[in-house]
Amino acid sequence: MRLKNKPYAKEYLEASMYVISKDDKKTQRLFRESKEACHLEIGMGKGDFIIGMAKQYPNIQFIGVEKYASVLVVAARKVEEAQLLNVRLMCLDAREIDEVFEPNTLDTLYINFSDPWPKKRHAKRRLTDAYFLEKYERVLKKDGFLIQKTDNQTLFESSLCSYANYGMQFNDVSLDLHARLSENDVHIMTEYERKFSGLGHTIKYFKGQFSS
Amino acid sequence: MRLKNKPYAKEYLEASMYVISKDDKKTQRLFRESKEACHLEIGMGKGDFIIGMAKQYPNIQFIGVEKYASVLVVAARKVEEAQLLNVRLMCLDAREIDEVFEPNTLDTLYINFSDPWPKKRHAKRRLTDAYFLEKYERVLKKDGFLIQKTDNQTLFESSLCSYANYGMQFNDVSLDLHARLSENDVHIMTEYERKFSGLGHTIKYFKGQFSS
Repeated sequence: MRLKNKPYAKEYLEASMYVISKDDKKTQRLFRESKEACHLEIGMGKGDFIIGMAKQYPNIQFIGVEKYASVLVVAARKVEEAQLLNVRLMCLDAREIDEVFEPNTLDTLYINFSDPWPKKRHAKRRLTDAYFLEKYERVLKKDGFLIQKTDNQTLFESSLCSYANYGMQFNDVSLDLHARLSENDVHIMTEYERKFSGLGHTIKYFKGQFSS
Repeated sequence: MRLKNKPYAKEYLEASMYVISKDDKKTQRLFRESKEACHLEIGMGKGDFIIGMAKQYPNIQFIGVEKYASVLVVAARKVEEAQLLNVRLMCLDAREIDEVFEPNTLDTLYINFSDPWPKKRHAKRRLTDAYFLEKYERVLKKDGFLIQKTDNQTLFESSLCSYANYGMQFNDVSLDLHARLSENDVHIMTEYERKFSGLGHTIKYFKGQFSS
């Protein structure tokens, strides 16, 4: 997405009660000790998915992490407005996820429409590369789920290879998620998903586990 | 495909030097002892793929197996006509593959446009169900490949889950094989593939191994 410099972002994020600092160990421990399920979205962008999910599932704790403060601030404002007590946001690079979250903490990890890094020489930067899977496996509970949505074919193809070759279990694969949904199904869309499915792109979906 | 009763099929197949009986242990041993690579297509239908491959790769031994004699006879006639010495055909149900072929015999197994059995209660009949994977693993050499092509989305989704949950390695996945081919690439098509890609269906492709 296009990034604008937002000088006020840092100050805003520091002041928001919905935004956790990645150095705030105390708040992070809350997630580990939470009796409620904890779901984390990596690269949650402007937050439409996590906010929609938090409204739909008030008994789940949602955490959205996003690398860019200038993007995070947009999501933070939406969460403030909705006064959603079961959402927290964090400015964090996915590479640091296992430094910030303790092992066996999370129930579900979402990777929605992540950067496809289409060039082969950049494949290791894809959020579904084995380098990242190792980190996800660490922070997820043993029976936790990894869920991916994307419209990008090359990313999805390489992700499936990466999951299988890492030894993951496949719970569900869909090459056209929206075709499968019926009118009554609750389905929370991301900003990208709304835009690209509107343009006729099919949405690919994966749900898997690190142990069966 | 539509099956016609062909009373002459049995006689024709028995007489053809290109058709091996599944009880003919001597000829089967040839494959095991062959110094050339052995590739087998399961459900090879009217034979366009295996004949095209055999012409393209004269140093590979191809075996096509097909359940229905009335279909096999069409392929047998084409092989006769082309006088292809590196193709043999066999009237065989995929369920019997590991009774007929000895362990560690085959280099590559092709499953092209197999019956999708779209109903959930028939999932076990799909040629990529774990029941069949166990048989394929037995007859393939340790570093042998399983290659699947299909235009059927549901079959492909369930096949990917089946492969991963069986513990297979994924060498390659494509959700649109033809988009990836360049003009100079050699690509042998099946009858179905020509028909359905002509109708605008995307062809899905999987290449994997039972051990890495």
